[in-house]
Amino acid sequence: MLQYQAPIRDPEFLLFDLFRVQDTWAGIPSLQAFTPDLVRAVLEEAGRLAGNVVAPLNQSGDKEGARLEQGGVVTPQGFAAAFAALAEGGWLGLSGNPLYGGQGMPKALAGLIEEMFWAANTSLFLYGTLTVGAAICIEAHGTPEQQALYLPKLYAGEWTGVMALTESHAGSDLGLMRTRAEPQADGSYRVSGTKIFITSGDHDMASNIVHLVLARLPDAPPGTRGISLFIVPKFVPDAAGKPGPRNAFAPGALEHKMGIHGSATCVMNYDGATGYLLGAPHQGLAAMFTMMNYERLSVGLQGLGAGEIAGQQALRYARERLQGRGPVSERIATSDRAAAADPLIAHPDVRRMLLTVRALTEGGRAFGLMAGMALDRARHQQDAAAESRAELLTPVAKAFLTDRGFECAVMAQQVFGGHGFVREWGVEQLVRDARIAQIYEGTNGIQAMDFIGRKVLRDGGAVLYALLDELAPQPVAPAHAAVVADAFTRLRRVTSTLVTRSAAEPALPGAVATDYLDLVGYTLLGWLWGRMAALAPDDEFGAAKRQTADFFFARLMPRALALEASVLADQRSVAASMG
Amino acid sequence: MLQYQAPIRDPEFLLFDLFRVQDTWAGIPSLQAFTPDLVRAVLEEAGRLAGNVVAPLNQSGDKEGARLEQGGVVTPQGFAAAFAALAEGGWLGLSGNPLYGGQGMPKALAGLIEEMFWAANTSLFLYGTLTVGAAICIEAHGTPEQQALYLPKLYAGEWTGVMALTESHAGSDLGLMRTRAEPQADGSYRVSGTKIFITSGDHDMASNIVHLVLARLPDAPPGTRGISLFIVPKFVPDAAGKPGPRNAFAPGALEHKMGIHGSATCVMNYDGATGYLLGAPHQGLAAMFTMMNYERLSVGLQGLGAGEIAGQQALRYARERLQGRGPVSERIATSDRAAAADPLIAHPDVRRMLLTVRALTEGGRAFGLMAGMALDRARHQQDAAAESRAELLTPVAKAFLTDRGFECAVMAQQVFGGHGFVREWGVEQLVRDARIAQIYEGTNGIQAMDFIGRKVLRDGGAVLYALLDELAPQPVAPAHAAVVADAFTRLRRVTSTLVTRSAAEPALPGAVATDYLDLVGYTLLGWLWGRMAALAPDDEFGAAKRQTADFFFARLMPRALALEASVLADQRSVAASMG
Repeated sequence: MLQYQAPIRDPEFLLFDLFRVQDTWAGIPSLQAFTPDLVRAVLEEAGRLAGNVVAPLNQSGDKEGARLEQGGVVTPQGFAAAFAALAEGGWLGLSGNPLYGGQGMPKALAGLIEEMFWAANTSLFLYGTLTVGAAICIEAHGTPEQQALYLPKLYAGEWTGVMALTESHAGSDLGLMRTRAEPQADGSYRVSGTKIFITSGDHDMASNIVHLVLARLPDAPPGTRGISLFIVPKFVPDAAGKPGPRNAFAPGALEHKMGIHGSATCVMNYDGATGYLLGAPHQGLAAMFTMMNYERLSVGLQGLGAGEIAGQQALRYARERLQGRGPVSERIATSDRAAAADPLIAHPDVRRMLLTVRALTEGGRAFGLMAGMALDRARHQQDAAAESRAELLTPVAKAFLTDRGFECAVMAQQVFGGHGFVREWGVEQLVRDARIAQIYEGTNGIQAMDFIGRKVLRDGGAVLYALLDELAPQPVAPAHAAVVADAFTRLRRVTSTLVTRSAAEPALPGAVATDYLDLVGYTLLGWLWGRMAALAPDDEFGAAKRQTADFFFARLMPRALALEASVLADQRSVAASMG
Repeated sequence: MLQYQAPIRDPEFLLFDLFRVQDTWAGIPSLQAFTPDLVRAVLEEAGRLAGNVVAPLNQSGDKEGARLEQGGVVTPQGFAAAFAALAEGGWLGLSGNPLYGGQGMPKALAGLIEEMFWAANTSLFLYGTLTVGAAICIEAHGTPEQQALYLPKLYAGEWTGVMALTESHAGSDLGLMRTRAEPQADGSYRVSGTKIFITSGDHDMASNIVHLVLARLPDAPPGTRGISLFIVPKFVPDAAGKPGPRNAFAPGALEHKMGIHGSATCVMNYDGATGYLLGAPHQGLAAMFTMMNYERLSVGLQGLGAGEIAGQQALRYARERLQGRGPVSERIATSDRAAAADPLIAHPDVRRMLLTVRALTEGGRAFGLMAGMALDRARHQQDAAAESRAELLTPVAKAFLTDRGFECAVMAQQVFGGHGFVREWGVEQLVRDARIAQIYEGTNGIQAMDFIGRKVLRDGGAVLYALLDELAPQPVAPAHAAVVADAFTRLRRVTSTLVTRSAAEPALPGAVATDYLDLVGYTLLGWLWGRMAALAPDDEFGAAKRQTADFFFARLMPRALALEASVLADQRSVAASMG
């Protein structure tokens, strides 16, 4: 019963009216080809594929699940064909380097498309997004031979990629890792160890699977400075790229999970598997982080997609389901006085939920785009300030968008009443699937600590202030200007207080990290909503935007007040012994 | 891997130090027997049963699930024996009338015990709690013959009870109901129709199952004023209580749900089933509400129990799991500098999560007790003001405690990182199970509308103000006195604004209902935490109380600021057309 219709008008509005990317892209040779007409065509084609090919497999994939058989992982029915359609259409190498078969698409655009596939079928798209991450890592750190051997296959979706980091005792703390790599006479390595939570560690949709495995060399220093990265292919290819003998590793089990049942989450056993060093020895964590940052923004977009598809189901249900009477002034045009009841959408509390989902999702989409644009500027214009900005925004995108995505999925489920708790309508699955995004690719707590520590306090807030300085002069809708200006002032004051206080209170940053990250998220969403209200066109779409902006400022922006008070409070109760 | 240890010290503190129930109970003949010594013994015995007998079946019950076979519903292995233990110990008739075999326990105490069983195994306890609800309804509205026939069997747990309200097109709006009851010559009725979402509609743990079914008589006026209530037993008993022939109804299917898999949620088909009118014709909804109010408080305690057990798992995991290094001043005594990492609990962001769960759970427990005490005063002292107070507090207890319970379960899951998303540790189940409490027994949106409309605005806030008047003079800890006083003043101002504005804005109450209910919840929790901090003893338990109070005021009380601003905002965006 799940249905998904990809948003097209909203992405176009964000790209061309809100951020005017056409002005930027026209000045960048590698992006000039992405004219508004091409962008519309690409969005529409992606939307068709997401809605018609990928989304219909979402519920069946959850029900069937990925399973481990004698020969390896079997994916749910239809997944392989849909994945092939994604690969053949070039949808797996969106922002990949065209030299190796990627589409060379700006991340700003690619992110909007990723959101569609995440929304349509999170489990299926997981097989693709990690492939892109692996390719980015090999492009950044591989030898020319490695690049030539792996990248065309990965961007084509012919082979897929895997990140193998976690071990049972080493989750967020990778320094505890035990997997070992022994150098061999031929320059290769033998990799041995067990990794857990390995997404897409095995499956039946590609002719080869390229694992990027973190392991320790014999001479490795302890902790995170002694970890190296290895390319460990399922079938070891010859120099021409022809997959050869089966490598010495295999899935030992699949995890039984709360959600994303269609995605194979493997325990992987590497038993002296043949691997090839990627990048410099002992520099594996830094190399892996190239991939991690990309993945983190993408996981943020997963949260966004979860909110979007859940909200679509709730809106449809609220228009169809007849229950009770709404207050007179609320009754909408479609409400029939002769009918026994009004549609759910006539009830203000239901509208509150629908508008919350809309405000957080559309605001989050604008925020994700802002992060994507920073990545584009860093990459295509070699802009160091943009690089810092991308690093600032990435953990916020990951944590804020996935926390809001889960909130939206739960709220959409609530609109269904009891029907939201049973499988039939599919929204309970959306909640179960959305939950993982807050956990993997670095828990949201890890994101918050990274954000406050490395991205804000380390430079005394400079990169954040520079962002606020750039945004503040751009006019927002007059009705919201005072609130936005006040929110910026408050955020500066809170930040400067934290910079000062944290010198004397080592526990402070961690204690307030999550609330501070959210405070930044709502403050930036405030600017984005104020700006969107200012630039919304004079039509039905624009009217809805302004209404949603009004709702955001009335009902959601106040959350920043609570977060500010929480961050500025005395934190001794967090530091005191818990026995 | 789930473990549950029932809290004993905290309930005792709340009963005897915070609320001093011993003073009240000593003056009520029917409650004089519940001395502190007896109460302790009862809490400890209930805790043992919950921890050792009921909790160990929680994960296995989820995995196995209830299933529908040829002869009816089969419950998970071990459920029948554990249910028999609950029945034999008298734990199903806690506050039931001793005349009919109930324990006559004050609701204040019974609620603390219910929380234990909810926490230990929600699915299993669901078979029991509805039994109590059915008994209460029969006691309030049945003939002496009906009372004599059904109550002893129900309080003994020999028979169980069922509420059959919902139909596929009639969920929150019971006026749309279609099930019919035709009068027969012998004074009985033939009940025909299909009900959905019927919890415990069938199972294999009792010799009879008594359905209370809402249906329409042939001469029924339309809507909610034409609904009558019927006793429809699975086996029609003779006057002596001996179950006779199988009645004409059966489960048609079980719902596939997000959680509470051990609980049988049935589609029930009544095919001219023999039923007996309970209460007056067309007064069924009012009669059913006797049961609903009891159930609603109990469901609130379910939310509380979910937060408690989830928090226990998170605390245990955070003490055992070694990951990373906490800031120096945070490192706890058990942390070992020679070990490769500190326990998770050394990280302030993890402590934030643990303390949030603790503050909301312990505060919620105090709040649930406040509601239970109002019920006791209404029942045992025939106090009309207490009756109004119980009606005021019930929807808040249901919605606020289940929303916070779900929040706590999700937060506890987050402490586990990736291990929280897989089945092994059991916390993902707690999240799935906790979710239903926000939905059933009237969605939390329904609770919020009931609260703001019927319980606050209808009398201009009088019952709420009376509560605040009674609480305000009782001293709270000096450190928190100003905040609590300010919160009371703010709540009065918000309420009086709503009373004024709602006359001209019919959509206003519904638009702000949920946020207003939460505002009341946090304000009362503020008073409770201030008071608990004032009365906490001078020992380790008391020190933890004061620390948690400090945390509550630093980090959670600020939420009231956001809620107040949200409620006072312009609500036109909620009322405007959503197209």
